[in-house]
Amino acid sequence: MLTNVEHIGIAVKSLAASNDLFTKLLGGKPYKAEAVESEGVTTSFFKINQTKIELLEATRPDSPIAKFLEKKGEGIHHLAFEVSDIYAEIERLKTEGFTPLNETPRRGADNKLVCFLHPKETNGVLVELCQEVKE
Amino acid sequence: MLTNVEHIGIAVKSLAASNDLFTKLLGGKPYKAEAVESEGVTTSFFKINQTKIELLEATRPDSPIAKFLEKKGEGIHHLAFEVSDIYAEIERLKTEGFTPLNETPRRGADNKLVCFLHPKETNGVLVELCQEVKE
Repeated sequence: MLTNVEHIGIAVKSLAASNDLFTKLLGGKPYKAEAVESEGVTTSFFKINQTKIELLEATRPDSPIAKFLEKKGEGIHHLAFEVSDIYAEIERLKTEGFTPLNETPRRGADNKLVCFLHPKETNGVLVELCQEVKE
Repeated sequence: MLTNVEHIGIAVKSLAASNDLFTKLLGGKPYKAEAVESEGVTTSFFKINQTKIELLEATRPDSPIAKFLEKKGEGIHHLAFEVSDIYAEIERLKTEGFTPLNETPRRGADNKLVCFLHPKETNGVLVELCQEVKE
């Protein structure tokens, strides 16, 4: 089950400039920054009620975020939903006809297991499922 | 102050087809449909925790949603934040250097007063501020 809009990911050219911009917009500073080497991104997180805003800057030209910026420019990159059991949710979505981009959840930013659905199946929206890793 | 991600607006070609798609994705049906004649849209709403997903279908060719679909295709159209005092928030954002598209809030869907910020000022994200109308 999808239980919450966990975060909205926004692709930006400059994390420094966009941190300033979103601090002014949201009225508060980012509460953390995190690099995800495997995805080629540096991220920063803002929180508003139960939802996070994740800004994503590419760290290398072959990063998915670099390609997104080149093709579409800055803007909303993905929409992430919290799930309580990502393995069960992937199975449920497959029976509903969706094709997860990665059938095995992988490690994302913010201590999460993540799985994506391709925008072609979801009205142009890159959908992320994420589940907090308990350690 | 921005207090919540109130909803995420998604432009779709067919509300009927996309209602089915998001019912499968989110695991629940839309809880209401609403036409906003002034904006040239028909909308439907899903709720997940404290955030809504608003699907928007254009009802005429000069609707902003029709133009968005023509230019960018289906996808996330806007990100809406709940505010407790939209007039005070517009003033605060102006002092921070933002330029609201409409300085006087106007009536939107879902019994809200709304104001938009242009994507060119907010990293390509069309930002909506919205406040529930108390009657």
